[in-house]
Amino acid sequence: MMAPRGRLIGLGVGPGDPELITVKALRLLRESPVVAYFVAKGKKGNAFGIIEGHLQQAQTLMPLVYPVTTEALPAPMSYERVISEFYDRCSADLAAHLDAGRDVAVICEGDPMFYGSYMYLHDRLANHYDAEVIPGVCSMLGGASVLGAPLVYRNQSLSVLSGVLSAEELKRKLQDADAAVIMKLGRNLPKVRQVLIETGLADRALYVERATMVNQKIVPLAEVDPMSSPYFSLIIVPGERWQG
Amino acid sequence: MMAPRGRLIGLGVGPGDPELITVKALRLLRESPVVAYFVAKGKKGNAFGIIEGHLQQAQTLMPLVYPVTTEALPAPMSYERVISEFYDRCSADLAAHLDAGRDVAVICEGDPMFYGSYMYLHDRLANHYDAEVIPGVCSMLGGASVLGAPLVYRNQSLSVLSGVLSAEELKRKLQDADAAVIMKLGRNLPKVRQVLIETGLADRALYVERATMVNQKIVPLAEVDPMSSPYFSLIIVPGERWQG
Repeated sequence: MMAPRGRLIGLGVGPGDPELITVKALRLLRESPVVAYFVAKGKKGNAFGIIEGHLQQAQTLMPLVYPVTTEALPAPMSYERVISEFYDRCSADLAAHLDAGRDVAVICEGDPMFYGSYMYLHDRLANHYDAEVIPGVCSMLGGASVLGAPLVYRNQSLSVLSGVLSAEELKRKLQDADAAVIMKLGRNLPKVRQVLIETGLADRALYVERATMVNQKIVPLAEVDPMSSPYFSLIIVPGERWQG
Repeated sequence: MMAPRGRLIGLGVGPGDPELITVKALRLLRESPVVAYFVAKGKKGNAFGIIEGHLQQAQTLMPLVYPVTTEALPAPMSYERVISEFYDRCSADLAAHLDAGRDVAVICEGDPMFYGSYMYLHDRLANHYDAEVIPGVCSMLGGASVLGAPLVYRNQSLSVLSGVLSAEELKRKLQDADAAVIMKLGRNLPKVRQVLIETGLADRALYVERATMVNQKIVPLAEVDPMSSPYFSLIIVPGERWQG
């Protein structure tokens, strides 16, 4: 008789503070025989750092090491092809465990469906295996909490934007938003800051690096050193306080 | 000697599944001598239902009962004034506990800073008392998880919109978004559905009621009965799958 197939679990572990994992994610993490996580070469990985204190000795760890650290590759290489092949390989490796009847938890910083690399595995595997997604506290809400910044009131709209967008795009979208969160800053910070000044939003904008992590840093936006702003920083433009 | 003042805690309890509360929120909930929660008259309250299994006998419960159940009030009453005075009274009641040195946890469905009523207490009290916000899994991520819907890829933008917006506003904002979440549906559902059809997004749109709760319901958008769609339903238009 064939063993039943394992379950794919996209497991959100929250924004950084290990205590901001959900009770459900913690239970499933401990129950999963295989724990997979994305990581840059030579790094430990943020998601892994969040949960390593909870691991059991018998669990199989499965680092999924990104083949590149930048999207700017010399021709004829293409980031899209390299990364797509990488996700194909990861999916095949996970499928081997699933076929053998072992559940695999793919741990994800923040939430799995909110800009998470897990989505690329989900898109490849969820039609063939049982997949369960455990939502997590995303980085922007971790940021709003440590900044003490109510994010959106009543019927306000929130726009979540990538700092990679052009200055023109960012400007247009910010002018149409009641509240905004700008992610993926890093080297995009000077551009984003300039756009916030030009749209009159710089005074309302709040900046935080590594929200809820032990090395969290909150700095006035005007004082951020663009050379040292990490990719995992974000800017929040809270909605205007409602009179209520 | 005066006792030290209590701490105000905005405590996100997650989208509905009681297991989707964070470890930190659960700890602080159990440690708080006073537990406050917003609730409609005659109801138990969603947030309260999520955490009631975790309460200790010695804790003081403090329901904050909304004085109105609709924003449409007969003249000369004004929703803004009625609700503003309500938040003033709630804040005064909380302040009495804080002044007496008791921590007060205000439990919030989802996340406290993401459309939460807690924000109005925070705006009134956080300048006078220590305030700590514990972020939670918000409803839209709970929704994405049960729908198995990756929400935003790479540099896509996400727009979170209120169903209360006019059809014109919704249309314009949806046309400019890569991915969208529409909240506060209820009686706005027919209008929102029509706009999704007109913008060509209806086929991509996913609908869920009470995501992650025991009475969760997932229905194809075209089949939703507008007369029975609850306020706590939402529509997700996921970003186009990235080739990666």
